[in-house]
Amino acid sequence: MTILRARQALTPAGWATDVDVEISPHGRIAAVRPQDGPADHRCDLLLPAPVNLHSHAFQRAMAGLTEARGPDGRDSFWTWRRLMYRFLDRLTPDDVEAIAAQVYVEMAEAGYAAVAEFHYLHHAPGGRPYARRAEMADRCAAAAAETGLGLTLLPVLYRWGGCDRRPLEGGQTRFGNDLDGFADLHAQAAETVVAGPADWTIGVAPHSLRAVGPEDLDAAAALAPDAPLHMHLAEQVAEVAEVQAHRGARPVQWLVDAQEVDARWCLIHCTQMTATETAALAGTGAVAGLCPITEANLGDGIFNGTAYAQAGGRWGVGSDSNVQIALWDELRTLEYSQRLRDRSRAALATANASTGRVLMETAAAGGAQAAGRDAGAIAEGRWADLVAVETETPWLAGRRRDAALDSLIFCGGNARAVRDVWSAGRHVVQSGRHVARARVARRYLATMARLGQDL
Amino acid sequence: MTILRARQALTPAGWATDVDVEISPHGRIAAVRPQDGPADHRCDLLLPAPVNLHSHAFQRAMAGLTEARGPDGRDSFWTWRRLMYRFLDRLTPDDVEAIAAQVYVEMAEAGYAAVAEFHYLHHAPGGRPYARRAEMADRCAAAAAETGLGLTLLPVLYRWGGCDRRPLEGGQTRFGNDLDGFADLHAQAAETVVAGPADWTIGVAPHSLRAVGPEDLDAAAALAPDAPLHMHLAEQVAEVAEVQAHRGARPVQWLVDAQEVDARWCLIHCTQMTATETAALAGTGAVAGLCPITEANLGDGIFNGTAYAQAGGRWGVGSDSNVQIALWDELRTLEYSQRLRDRSRAALATANASTGRVLMETAAAGGAQAAGRDAGAIAEGRWADLVAVETETPWLAGRRRDAALDSLIFCGGNARAVRDVWSAGRHVVQSGRHVARARVARRYLATMARLGQDL
Repeated sequence: MTILRARQALTPAGWATDVDVEISPHGRIAAVRPQDGPADHRCDLLLPAPVNLHSHAFQRAMAGLTEARGPDGRDSFWTWRRLMYRFLDRLTPDDVEAIAAQVYVEMAEAGYAAVAEFHYLHHAPGGRPYARRAEMADRCAAAAAETGLGLTLLPVLYRWGGCDRRPLEGGQTRFGNDLDGFADLHAQAAETVVAGPADWTIGVAPHSLRAVGPEDLDAAAALAPDAPLHMHLAEQVAEVAEVQAHRGARPVQWLVDAQEVDARWCLIHCTQMTATETAALAGTGAVAGLCPITEANLGDGIFNGTAYAQAGGRWGVGSDSNVQIALWDELRTLEYSQRLRDRSRAALATANASTGRVLMETAAAGGAQAAGRDAGAIAEGRWADLVAVETETPWLAGRRRDAALDSLIFCGGNARAVRDVWSAGRHVVQSGRHVARARVARRYLATMARLGQDL
Repeated sequence: MTILRARQALTPAGWATDVDVEISPHGRIAAVRPQDGPADHRCDLLLPAPVNLHSHAFQRAMAGLTEARGPDGRDSFWTWRRLMYRFLDRLTPDDVEAIAAQVYVEMAEAGYAAVAEFHYLHHAPGGRPYARRAEMADRCAAAAAETGLGLTLLPVLYRWGGCDRRPLEGGQTRFGNDLDGFADLHAQAAETVVAGPADWTIGVAPHSLRAVGPEDLDAAAALAPDAPLHMHLAEQVAEVAEVQAHRGARPVQWLVDAQEVDARWCLIHCTQMTATETAALAGTGAVAGLCPITEANLGDGIFNGTAYAQAGGRWGVGSDSNVQIALWDELRTLEYSQRLRDRSRAALATANASTGRVLMETAAAGGAQAAGRDAGAIAEGRWADLVAVETETPWLAGRRRDAALDSLIFCGGNARAVRDVWSAGRHVVQSGRHVARARVARRYLATMARLGQDL
């Protein structure tokens, strides 16, 4: 049993002071109790470490290469997507594993304990499956294993190039599977996950309403009953128009009408919702998978956060394109988007909890639900997904309870804050550094040097 | 002569590679030339270090303490202001100096070489002037001297509690001066600045159209002819309504009609502008003083950045409330606000320069102009305000030219990036740490412990 002693810990019952958290050899929280006896580790501020609920790991390697205008003087989500397709066409399985390992190190150092990897880069360039169909999925799992990050693996079904069911072309051919091929791939990936650590989960991800038809969605859902089911939904204006033209309803409206959307579902983005759709989605019990930094970077638009929260909607956050891997920034970007739109303050705060506390508790609970991971709170029986924050810094010193969380999320600048992270009891970040940082970075740098940077 | 060797340096002529920058003993750039002979320092990526053009240093001490709802369940800019007034009523001159020194350390470590301190906390609690009227201004200067940050000191004229010329009350009484008292205060502060380092500048700051009448504005401007003149303008919707009711025009419109606004002026915020006002302000040659993080935190609204830039408007950035002191975050928050509003990408990029390069060059030039500081570019004769970035990290390695700036601004997360900063040749940040960090932090922590945190 490992004993972690915290001066302040955020628990489902509120702030606990001077508590011991017992971590079992299996990686679960065995007890949360008043401090007593010797301790293995001490910390000032202990929080549930969230799941990063949406990642395309390989995109990290092109971060910063797409912030200029195109040759036509314009730039948009769609020009970005073309660059992304061109870039990924270079990637081998070794590259993907090296990049994913670097990304998972950065996620852990940012305070995430686990990742839901929305994995769609399946085949060799040109579209031919690898000898083992789940080769690329296995490489994501290998990166998670090497770095100790908890994993919810979400193999993606990507069938069509649009709602008109045009075939995939160009860079997209690496994503495509028919239903039989996808069933094989999914079964192989599930074997890999089952052979991995006990906290890992397999789910399934029909890519979007553009990329799967209604019957494909049913088929994907049936492959992993009761498992996490993730889908991109209502990210871009042009996407809403396309879905409306072909399905007769806007994306969120269509989905809640056509499917039994429940707590198993995680709908990514939802940046384009009417008030009716916002209330409808909030009522399903599904998680809205928000990616505020990527949604700002790609100009998706601002999520209807205050209305959704008032309607009881659940949400979590993901780093998506991984243009920036920063948990506190992700939460702050969400809150600030609400304030800027409404010219308000403390937009997501409640009468009983400050902005920072609402952001932290909601993201931890929502991320765990979306990932099908028995975590998201510092409570007996859950996986020990924990982040210890260094508070002996000028900007955090003396900050207590909710104000400590507010300072952590809103006031960080130059200073590091994450000191230790445990993922299902694995002590992956120690004194601010991931235990495999140097080795993983060396391999990543060699990969990047070979890939080049001209997009 | 100190020789700084850079693999990449951003100069007015574009990217220079393998150059030496010579820093004279007086702190100016003596030459920018091809590398030759021995070098004192080497770096990968060398940039002009901007001026932080708007700071209320003392507000850093309350960062993170105002992110919850008030007792009435609401929160706004105006409730935040009441808390701010209550907090500042505790502060002694020693407190202000300790806080400002900590803030200036953090600014330097963030990559700023200088600060324009918009200083309005003049008197003792209750409103009685200190024995030396510029006591508090001197303390800001002492903090800048201790930390080596370049200073543009802006004593603030704050006369009234609103456009209706109601007297100052409560916390505001520490700000107020009549015109004679302010002239004395300003003359004393000017003596302090003249006795300081050669790169320091004295300016003047009529607080806002709420706090000064037209004749006060003229009187303040006359105290420091040709010097930087800063004023808050058009931040909040309620402020626009108040000015319109009393002056018959919206704030920006009133100012450009009533005053000869030119390159001497820096107008802070301008988050509330019509299209006509946006074009009018851009045409004056003044600098718009943007504080994107604070403006998001306080829910001010989104600056008309793309229209203003297209009209040739100049701008720079300031950390204002100092809720977060982070140069790259400040620039990123500005750009992302434009993208989210317009559902666009690369909003401030041009055909010839990426987003990051436009942000960096504009902020450096605008900050220097606003501060009346002969800096803002790596060019012969300017003050040596320089920031060297560490690029041997996974997220910056191999990134060249504009892509290096884009990665620096958009992709940083856990990693530090600022390695060295020179302010007018003073080497204040070395290997990522301000040279006085430990001493300044100790004093700040003692101050904070005594002040307490209940607002």
